[in-house]
Amino acid sequence: MSGEIELKIRKLGLELPEAPAAVGSYAPALQVGNLVVTSGQLPFDKDGIAFAGRIGAELGIGDGTHAARICILNALAQIKATVGDLDRVKQIVRVEGYVHSAPGFRDQPKVLNGASELLNEIFGDAGKHTRIALGVSEMPLNAAVQIAVWAEVEASD
Amino acid sequence: MSGEIELKIRKLGLELPEAPAAVGSYAPALQVGNLVVTSGQLPFDKDGIAFAGRIGAELGIGDGTHAARICILNALAQIKATVGDLDRVKQIVRVEGYVHSAPGFRDQPKVLNGASELLNEIFGDAGKHTRIALGVSEMPLNAAVQIAVWAEVEASD
Amino acid sequence: MSGEIELKIRKLGLELPEAPAAVGSYAPALQVGNLVVTSGQLPFDKDGIAFAGRIGAELGIGDGTHAARICILNALAQIKATVGDLDRVKQIVRVEGYVHSAPGFRDQPKVLNGASELLNEIFGDAGKHTRIALGVSEMPLNAAVQIAVWAEVEASD
Repeated sequence: MSGEIELKIRKLGLELPEAPAAVGSYAPALQVGNLVVTSGQLPFDKDGIAFAGRIGAELGIGDGTHAARICILNALAQIKATVGDLDRVKQIVRVEGYVHSAPGFRDQPKVLNGASELLNEIFGDAGKHTRIALGVSEMPLNAAVQIAVWAEVEASD
Repeated sequence: MSGEIELKIRKLGLELPEAPAAVGSYAPALQVGNLVVTSGQLPFDKDGIAFAGRIGAELGIGDGTHAARICILNALAQIKATVGDLDRVKQIVRVEGYVHSAPGFRDQPKVLNGASELLNEIFGDAGKHTRIALGVSEMPLNAAVQIAVWAEVEASD
Repeated sequence: MSGEIELKIRKLGLELPEAPAAVGSYAPALQVGNLVVTSGQLPFDKDGIAFAGRIGAELGIGDGTHAARICILNALAQIKATVGDLDRVKQIVRVEGYVHSAPGFRDQPKVLNGASELLNEIFGDAGKHTRIALGVSEMPLNAAVQIAVWAEVEASD
């Protein structure tokens, strides 16, 4: 059996994108022991950054949750590219969520619930994760959200 | 023997709180291998956020160190809820400290020493940890400080 | 064989500094399993913080890349102090890069490429790493950049 998680993603009406290239001289994801760690993922789609600007100013919470979901799909694409099949994910361990925030915007958790709920829908219990939720004043490429993911994977045969 | 660390906490005149619920669709802490990672902890006490505002504006350094100590007690409560007994902590590995900072406030290390010194008092050598100390412009729920902790725990029997 | 990586550093015209002391009550680096994690490193040289200020205001991108390189050398000094010899590094796993950013500055990846490219030059394939790149509004000691590094090391004999 393989491809079950990707099937689940399609059943949710979503599609795993091509794993985006790194925005610099680094790797988009790496495995160390049974842990896969992604680089910070931005809300890239085929046309570039899908949500640019600050939540609470140019963008609203709904835009932010949407951007967070794109970041998660990109992170899952990176994990797949690293381990071959998302069915090898045993547990999503951590979501590091950075929200490009206008002065006074403090609903970072609501924005990142877009990421957390999508992981729960896709992976069920294995999608339960720890989280940090931070508001940052400036973001690479003016992206609305940046998310890095840690996943525990099954040991290789 | 068990409960030694909690006894130490009480001898310091402190009390381990109930582990706070997550502020969103995620888990407050998780174990992967021998590492327990907490979600970002806010300075919650029984009445809500105990210290709200920015250090260097609405709040001073003393408020910040106090808030940092509350975050650490909450993080320890999460670790206990995850592994059953704080005596299983072999080493505090990392403190990620985010200080809600007014423009021009650059004493984040002093604020976070509240967290670091408490860990040293409670755990002795096992409380020695690495740290990142950052100033952020916006914080969930307007909290003064957010802290996540990594702890290495003894392997289960 | 030992000291190969340090030889490489010298061939690049650089020098591994003394491992800087922690700016507070914590450890500059720790090993947990095969992973060494450093505390956030600032661009300290012998005279103190070499680059103070915000990129995009008091400082430019070139200053930032320079500061990022100093942070990396300091991180490598911490790793050496922890494991004895940089030749024991199997893989640089992660660079966490925080750039002290003026309002509107969004070229954090360019600043951190200074760090990433130096790791690639020193370690070759083993220097390939994941990365998060964030802009923060305030930084301890007004430093231009803060970087923490994770490295996987060979198991001890």
